[in-house]
Amino acid sequence: MITLKNCQLRDAADPLRSLKSLFSIPEGVIYLDGNSLGVMPKTAAARAAQVVTQEWGQGLIRSWNSAGWFDLPQRLGNRIAPLIGAKDHQVVATDSTSINLFKVLSAALSIAATDNPKRRTVVSERSNFPTDLYIAEGLCQARGFQLQLLEPEEIASALHEEVAVLLLTHVNYRTGAMHDMAALTTAAHAAGALVVWDLAHSAGAVPVDLLGANADFAVGCGYKYLNGGPGAPAFLWANPRHTARTDLPFMQPLSGWWGHAAPFAFTSDYQAAPGIDRFLCGTQPIVSLSLLECGLDTFKQAKALGGMPALREKSLALTDLFITLVEQRCTGFGLGLATPREHAQRGSQVCLTRERDAKDGGTSSAFAMVQALIARGVIGDYRAGDGALHKDILRFGLTPLYIGFEDVWNAVEQLRQVLETEEWKQPQFMQQHAVT
Amino acid sequence: MITLKNCQLRDAADPLRSLKSLFSIPEGVIYLDGNSLGVMPKTAAARAAQVVTQEWGQGLIRSWNSAGWFDLPQRLGNRIAPLIGAKDHQVVATDSTSINLFKVLSAALSIAATDNPKRRTVVSERSNFPTDLYIAEGLCQARGFQLQLLEPEEIASALHEEVAVLLLTHVNYRTGAMHDMAALTTAAHAAGALVVWDLAHSAGAVPVDLLGANADFAVGCGYKYLNGGPGAPAFLWANPRHTARTDLPFMQPLSGWWGHAAPFAFTSDYQAAPGIDRFLCGTQPIVSLSLLECGLDTFKQAKALGGMPALREKSLALTDLFITLVEQRCTGFGLGLATPREHAQRGSQVCLTRERDAKDGGTSSAFAMVQALIARGVIGDYRAGDGALHKDILRFGLTPLYIGFEDVWNAVEQLRQVLETEEWKQPQFMQQHAVT
Repeated sequence: MITLKNCQLRDAADPLRSLKSLFSIPEGVIYLDGNSLGVMPKTAAARAAQVVTQEWGQGLIRSWNSAGWFDLPQRLGNRIAPLIGAKDHQVVATDSTSINLFKVLSAALSIAATDNPKRRTVVSERSNFPTDLYIAEGLCQARGFQLQLLEPEEIASALHEEVAVLLLTHVNYRTGAMHDMAALTTAAHAAGALVVWDLAHSAGAVPVDLLGANADFAVGCGYKYLNGGPGAPAFLWANPRHTARTDLPFMQPLSGWWGHAAPFAFTSDYQAAPGIDRFLCGTQPIVSLSLLECGLDTFKQAKALGGMPALREKSLALTDLFITLVEQRCTGFGLGLATPREHAQRGSQVCLTRERDAKDGGTSSAFAMVQALIARGVIGDYRAGDGALHKDILRFGLTPLYIGFEDVWNAVEQLRQVLETEEWKQPQFMQQHAVT
Repeated sequence: MITLKNCQLRDAADPLRSLKSLFSIPEGVIYLDGNSLGVMPKTAAARAAQVVTQEWGQGLIRSWNSAGWFDLPQRLGNRIAPLIGAKDHQVVATDSTSINLFKVLSAALSIAATDNPKRRTVVSERSNFPTDLYIAEGLCQARGFQLQLLEPEEIASALHEEVAVLLLTHVNYRTGAMHDMAALTTAAHAAGALVVWDLAHSAGAVPVDLLGANADFAVGCGYKYLNGGPGAPAFLWANPRHTARTDLPFMQPLSGWWGHAAPFAFTSDYQAAPGIDRFLCGTQPIVSLSLLECGLDTFKQAKALGGMPALREKSLALTDLFITLVEQRCTGFGLGLATPREHAQRGSQVCLTRERDAKDGGTSSAFAMVQALIARGVIGDYRAGDGALHKDILRFGLTPLYIGFEDVWNAVEQLRQVLETEEWKQPQFMQQHAVT
């Protein structure tokens, strides 16, 4: 049996243990929600003060040049690139994940419609993150494509000759299941389709190799595992073979002045910038964007300790430990496991399932359990079950940058107590409201 | 002749003079670029520290509810509404101006295509802000409309039966000329067209009455006259008669989860939220968005002193003074006036023109003059002349919230010295580079 002492010894032997000190984690909190909003790097407060008081307050308009505001999307993009297997000048940090997905899916549809006009189907996963499906639904309707939603295991065999684009999220937000990016990209290309990857739940959490997989487009989130702050701008990658195309100037239709070849020439006609810059649109929220750099700085320090491979190794060790401890110490309470046991299929989160108790009048037991845990300082989150799953989800993100093995022990111990005492049945935990 | 003493007396008698103390303006700077990036309200530093250290650092994911992050777009929209003649629940603060323009122009084209499919022309102004034209160019190409660009005086008579949408910026970024919103909206409606207004250079600077004009859609900027900070999110208004439509769920195609009727139900199909919320897309940059509130707070204080009518009166007095002083004290240097003398046609900026000197080898004299002024602490900006104008522009934004009459005197006095000493011909001022 694993003991608290075991976990403490593993922390002591963890080569990445020093990274936790880069972050400000509230007293008494075990934060297992970095897959929703990452914690604050300690440098963020000073950086915010500098951007607001000095760069804005004192520098004013001059800071566009003197403080480097102009090329912040590109500069931060270059910092994100090594985390996702991309190169310099291939990534921009800008706008939101949903908007960036609109841009790259539009581009993929434009390319498909030009190169292979008979292909009119976009394939995605039924349990993909809803905003990806909403964007796809709207674009398909507007551009005359049909959206085909499949179960994960059906995808590889469904890549027929009418598929224009395969649109997938690398790690599922609800289950933590991870697709094989290289294999699915290869299969889609073999079938003649383009591939768009959403890295919201993988960038910064698992190694990603977009160029190695020869993917077409990718987007991802700045405020989850990249620790960029609430609503931090997202990022966007496009394979250079697509950004180099000159025959589709409006391949991404958000053709604002920041994506113009000469934004300050103020010409009246649009000329797409060369390269990834064409995926920029308008002026960026500089304060929020600047704070993303603080999150990315922590990966620079992680790199010296082994980088993404070391983070991945620790992440798998943490999720293994979480699963094992739940199965050793929380049995008999109706919890199941939604996250794959196989390492190759797992992101950096553990998702437990719980059926709804009929006697609760429809209120979700999983929701109440998460609320009771939060009241004890263990912050995870809840996701309602979908039609396919029939079970609600208790979701725990294990960010290897700042979560340790003792944290996992303590979190599962709190869960055990919540379950054994039936504390979660208290009325204040049963009252369901909007959650993130 | 106007004297410095006159100007000082006018400041002393100005009922709005106390508002300047709400802002942090760098020592030795006269800031006449609030139409590009507004100055920092003094409350911004503390607010940034609160959002970063408390709401993000301590509150973490809980702040979506406890700190009110979720409804920030709507809450700030309600604060912007009275500045633009809109009502509660009609405005959202979100995304960038370019992206919001894409949303509302898409919606206008969808409505036009449904209600009046024979109308296939979008009319705009040739000297409209380029990003508006780029967005329009892309959308027209994608949706099968043609974009017709006209001179301002040609617009009213060009609203023929094939015009679907009239797209205009209320105050021209380069000349400060202001359109008659009520008259042009009425004329467009009489011709059967919808009207989209870009308020980037008018919201917070001149009174705007969208409902009074019965306009259809509007967007505007958070970081110019609203003083929301660098790249602060923009805003978007839609007439309720359009947001109420249920037949066009994808009227705005950026159909992300924040615009869904039930964003946390995580259903796989898109259902547009009722009302203005349908124009939201993805998660917002909360730190930048929060700082916009500091800028809007200063309008609350201005309201007690007369609000937008009083600000407008002062703005016209400031721009009148600037024009008069330039004409009294800076004659013989080839400067002309691009901004209309008629109050009803003027925004809150004064734009001077200067032809290029052939002997300068093509370098803009206007650019060098602006650089020399900036070196003296008078911050205006430069815009290159377009084909129609044949003259470059020295642009001076006069923000009535924080610019006084003595500031205008001093700015023109510095301009006079720059011209009389020919200081602007010094090599360091002639070197042209990217400017905002």
